[in-house]
Amino acid sequence: MSEQKPGNRPRTDRPGTSRRAFLRGGSTLAVGALAGAATVPAHAAQPDPAITEIQEWNQYLGDGVDAFPYGAPSSFEKHVIRRNVPWLTADATASVNFTPLHELDGIITPNGLCFERHHAGIALVDPAQHRLMINGLVETPLVFTMADLQRFPRENHVYFLECAANTGMEWRGAQLNGCQFTHGMVHNVMYTGVPLRTLLQEAGVKTSGKWLLAEGADASAMTRSIPMEKALDDCLVAFKMNGEALRPEQGYPVRLVVPGWEGNMWVKWLRRLEVGDQPWHHREETSKYTDLLESGKARRFTWTMDVKSVITNPSPQAPITTGPGPTVLTGLAWSGLGTVTRVDVSVDGGRNWRPARLDGPSLSKSLHRFYYDFNWDGSELLLQSRAMDEFGNVQPTKEALRQARGENSIYHNNGIQTWYVQENGVTENVEVS
Amino acid sequence: MSEQKPGNRPRTDRPGTSRRAFLRGGSTLAVGALAGAATVPAHAAQPDPAITEIQEWNQYLGDGVDAFPYGAPSSFEKHVIRRNVPWLTADATASVNFTPLHELDGIITPNGLCFERHHAGIALVDPAQHRLMINGLVETPLVFTMADLQRFPRENHVYFLECAANTGMEWRGAQLNGCQFTHGMVHNVMYTGVPLRTLLQEAGVKTSGKWLLAEGADASAMTRSIPMEKALDDCLVAFKMNGEALRPEQGYPVRLVVPGWEGNMWVKWLRRLEVGDQPWHHREETSKYTDLLESGKARRFTWTMDVKSVITNPSPQAPITTGPGPTVLTGLAWSGLGTVTRVDVSVDGGRNWRPARLDGPSLSKSLHRFYYDFNWDGSELLLQSRAMDEFGNVQPTKEALRQARGENSIYHNNGIQTWYVQENGVTENVEVS
Repeated sequence: MSEQKPGNRPRTDRPGTSRRAFLRGGSTLAVGALAGAATVPAHAAQPDPAITEIQEWNQYLGDGVDAFPYGAPSSFEKHVIRRNVPWLTADATASVNFTPLHELDGIITPNGLCFERHHAGIALVDPAQHRLMINGLVETPLVFTMADLQRFPRENHVYFLECAANTGMEWRGAQLNGCQFTHGMVHNVMYTGVPLRTLLQEAGVKTSGKWLLAEGADASAMTRSIPMEKALDDCLVAFKMNGEALRPEQGYPVRLVVPGWEGNMWVKWLRRLEVGDQPWHHREETSKYTDLLESGKARRFTWTMDVKSVITNPSPQAPITTGPGPTVLTGLAWSGLGTVTRVDVSVDGGRNWRPARLDGPSLSKSLHRFYYDFNWDGSELLLQSRAMDEFGNVQPTKEALRQARGENSIYHNNGIQTWYVQENGVTENVEVS
Repeated sequence: MSEQKPGNRPRTDRPGTSRRAFLRGGSTLAVGALAGAATVPAHAAQPDPAITEIQEWNQYLGDGVDAFPYGAPSSFEKHVIRRNVPWLTADATASVNFTPLHELDGIITPNGLCFERHHAGIALVDPAQHRLMINGLVETPLVFTMADLQRFPRENHVYFLECAANTGMEWRGAQLNGCQFTHGMVHNVMYTGVPLRTLLQEAGVKTSGKWLLAEGADASAMTRSIPMEKALDDCLVAFKMNGEALRPEQGYPVRLVVPGWEGNMWVKWLRRLEVGDQPWHHREETSKYTDLLESGKARRFTWTMDVKSVITNPSPQAPITTGPGPTVLTGLAWSGLGTVTRVDVSVDGGRNWRPARLDGPSLSKSLHRFYYDFNWDGSELLLQSRAMDEFGNVQPTKEALRQARGENSIYHNNGIQTWYVQENGVTENVEVS
């Protein structure tokens, strides 16, 4: 379908950027005028007569409704993917990839772009054979099929999930050049599931039962200890995310949701819940996921993810390409304790702060989207954001964190991030003192 | 990796249901007990010693984090797809496919499962070449690139989009056996975009400008007239859905969002907005998308989608398979005017009603999720749901709609739907008088 059609103007070829190479390069319509638009407040140009030209996609039928029973993004969006850092871990089956935060907007993370962290690869579990057991200090040990779980009353909640190691590489200064890599171990979806409380009440927790061990069904048999108070509060045994079944890399067919607490506790491929009278001190809560302080002692059980924010645009992977003039700065803020009530933005490395605009539903323990719409004069910027939650907790500087915890830490870095925007719009990860 | 490993118990093969046939059939663990669980209030069984058996997925490493840069559902979920009805239209490029509502939960529709309706196939538009023009009765005609649009302040909102023809086949009685087909022309996502008002103010609408023509860039050049009052109210020029770029079949790179109004007005691949002093009366608002009454006259401009609901489970495609006992009935409710404040459920064809439990964020012009948790005694059921919105509008019976509008109609059927559940759990689309 790439032949010239009668009535078409001559066209110049452009390199094929998609699987549909027949969509050949077309009009240069009003491009001169539009380039100028970047410098005027209107940020748009008056129409050129060329607007009346018929584009390729006006002339031909596209794919029908039977083409994609399960849809996929446009071929022009192939760069919007999760990315891993091969040198970060010895093997991709015990590793992480990162959410492309700089390509997203709003507060929902699409399922295909939710970061993954697993310790023995993605377990492919047959839901018909999978079982969830509750044992230990309970009146009646129980085993549930997936069909059993779906007979209990359900709830729906949007929660962020953040890995405790998110931003961990930045303890020792600016390391990774892009918010996908510095902050991309977070995602935010709507979960559907049964309150953990309901299942524990069904089994009958004995009065001596103060702790819960959650165990995964993958080859790493991930285990974490959870205090009973949290287990009976807002945890979910979830089987859907953003409406559909959990994705395999997110624990299909069932995972634990531990709102506001570090992602490692949200055990995936959940197979067992054991009630006990004390924590188990397994590998993932001793040698890992504890914070080694300057003294050589480690903080035990740092569960809550503290109030935090990051500017996603502009950022190193998303520089300013439109020149001076009206510019949308945007980012994400969250708190493991509740809602974010305020985000301030600085363009001069933290000397002056202005309130950002929070937009979209404000949900507890969910990502919040903020914007700062400003008129860029083309000078250098040192961008920072600082979030505050409903309890008055304020995101600290990285320096304050280092003073409190030393430089041995990896986990729970909620420090203020700085991006340096050059006059040409190129943006870098830097640190200001 | 399917060979027997030392220490494994003998296994029985089961038919491969996934691309990973090496995940061979495993334990029959506690199946006898679990089958019995369906009849006891606990809806779960005490553990069988077999629970300690190691499943296949406990033993082997799965795929690493580099396997799926953009993720996909589990191979066990291949049946969860959009479906079209080949006999419904002459050609798949001017047709519809349907959201599998019976497979979903919560209120967010994942992008890959949002129903499609287009009139000339899916236009594959190059965002670098795409332009949006505002012309007509404006002070300054404007042309925007995609980069231009992204310099204006943005907003995020969750809105349902319902085709005016949703449930249209049901005017003449129960026709289609599944809520995917009777009610699946609806989806619900979070949009990110620029208020249409902002762009119109930038162009400067002349006092004579009372109507807006929205035009799509696909080969059908879809056009609809929108009154200026709505255009200046809550419409968005949106470029993201559920965080990521619009999907091609949803208008990539930019579509109009017309909250609460019929889906056909949400022009996709939006290329032009013309301001005029009267409606255009184009094809899609005269011969189509008007309601032909018994008198032979047609209702002109029936824009708002009235208050409506449907039970998604149980339903013909999702019968009760777990037998009598605790059962979760669930469904969706929505109103084009605002929030849904109440949903009632009947199990006896509308003779008695009980309030359902609304769950999840209650957002204006968004889907709402409701549940009715009950103990099924195994007898026949005639299930109905009836929604009410914040303005006191109550979903009518189909019979009331027919009395008001006759039987020529296709569009705007918000009548109460009935599912007949047999004693064996099989569920059918029926009508009660």
